Amino acid sequence: MSSEPTGLIAKSGIELLTFGTPNGYKASILLEELKDAYGKDYTWQSINISKNTQKEPWFTAVSPNGRIPAIVDHDRDGFSVFEGLAILGYLTRRYDTEHKFSFPVDSNEYDEAETWLAWQHGGVGPMQGQAGHFVRYAKEKIPYGIQRYVGETERLYGVLNTRLEGRDWIVGNKFSIADINLLGWVNVSQAGGIDLEAKFPNIAKWLARALARPAVQRGFAIPYSSPLSNSVVKEALADPEKKKPIEEIYKLIQDSKDQYGYKYASP
Amino acid sequence: MSSEPTGLIAKSGIELLTFGTPNGYKASILLEELKDAYGKDYTWQSINISKNTQKEPWFTAVSPNGRIPAIVDHDRDGFSVFEGLAILGYLTRRYDTEHKFSFPVDSNEYDEAETWLAWQHGGVGPMQGQAGHFVRYAKEKIPYGIQRYVGETERLYGVLNTRLEGRDWIVGNKFSIADINLLGWVNVSQAGGIDLEAKFPNIAKWLARALARPAVQRGFAIPYSSPLSNSVVKEALADPEKKKPIEEIYKLIQDSKDQYGYKYASP
Repeated sequence: MSSEPTGLIAKSGIELLTFGTPNGYKASILLEELKDAYGKDYTWQSINISKNTQKEPWFTAVSPNGRIPAIVDHDRDGFSVFEGLAILGYLTRRYDTEHKFSFPVDSNEYDEAETWLAWQHGGVGPMQGQAGHFVRYAKEKIPYGIQRYVGETERLYGVLNTRLEGRDWIVGNKFSIADINLLGWVNVSQAGGIDLEAKFPNIAKWLARALARPAVQRGFAIPYSSPLSNSVVKEALADPEKKKPIEEIYKLIQDSKDQYGYKYASP
Repeated sequence: MSSEPTGLIAKSGIELLTFGTPNGYKASILLEELKDAYGKDYTWQSINISKNTQKEPWFTAVSPNGRIPAIVDHDRDGFSVFEGLAILGYLTRRYDTEHKFSFPVDSNEYDEAETWLAWQHGGVGPMQGQAGHFVRYAKEKIPYGIQRYVGETERLYGVLNTRLEGRDWIVGNKFSIADINLLGWVNVSQAGGIDLEAKFPNIAKWLARALARPAVQRGFAIPYSSPLSNSVVKEALADPEKKKPIEEIYKLIQDSKDQYGYKYASP
């Protein structure tokens, strides 16, 4: 029986408060990359959001929005940062001194990375998150909500697929925080009925390139691997016993699209 | 009869492509502030999003997501930036050389501002946007969607109200892009049933402070003033002829909350 955290535990370095969600992984992936590149170690705690640990006063003192991920930098007077975009920005500005995963502040690539980070943070994250809510978590199945958010997620994936035409990485021909920021969401797309190989081949190849990195693999296991990851869902789809609930979700999505005359359009 | 833009028109300086939306105003407000502070001029074009001008090829060449606002910097080889957060970051890093509306990149305040910019960009914007959709624009009135997004918007306003306890501005005791980024959304909150004075008094006072700035007032008029701004809605509520449709929306929101047993909770 593991009990929930009740406060910060580290005395030095970065302490990450996270959970196995698309937004959580971006922080653990970057921290694993910084470990490989610079030997920078960190501490993490798993915050079970279904138990509302992230609404406890000790947590909201660090992260007033009551959401994961959040970090505390014990080497800088306990300075805390929340929101994935800002965590990636902070960690690279402070600790990616050789710009292995980021870009110098005065370069055009810094601005470009910020643009694509914001595009994810205000688009893919919130919209794919709402799709997941209406498709999977809402007690009522509401076709209007399902097709609205699955459709917007597909539109956004279309924009990303176009961006990746002729590029290995999103910004500056280098694996960077602009990529890391998106990995968690793209890696659960299949569960929401998005078949990358069939519809967004540039994204499929980009994801495979990123998943080949050992630090990305380790980051995706902190605090635990997602039961909704593309590889898990694809395995289940190949299993006659396990594929039924997934196919039911796909049917629900298709029926919702049909009901509202959904037509894929990008941008 | 005004016809829609068909391409970029400026040869130098910043060209802003925008419309009278909460996200559009953040760009015009900062550009008006930069004009007052540094004498920096800019060109703007109104992009009528109901005519889908933002989906035209010339526009998506600048802003591949097909959304406003976007900027083009003709003084830097036509470098373009989209996403409000990135536009505010770019303009201040390049042109707010005395840090009148921003913070030096190596200061803690830069990280704090980025955190609150991201909090708006991934939270208030998308969620209040969805609330507006379900309350006002969706052809079907879906109580589940209405209470979900109005409720999440109120939760976020609660976080902001707490942040503003004992503070005039969101970050660093100075009016900055962290404030500008939120103004457009907060200034249409009343239309969505959020009474700032009654429920979020710190936000009401903060908004009044910001609205006292001439550049903020001018920015809120580009390309036109919102017919949904708090002042317009309050005037209508004081008019027996005009208040009825607004009160109907408020009733719809309250009925939706009642139906799902909504209970306000922050964070």
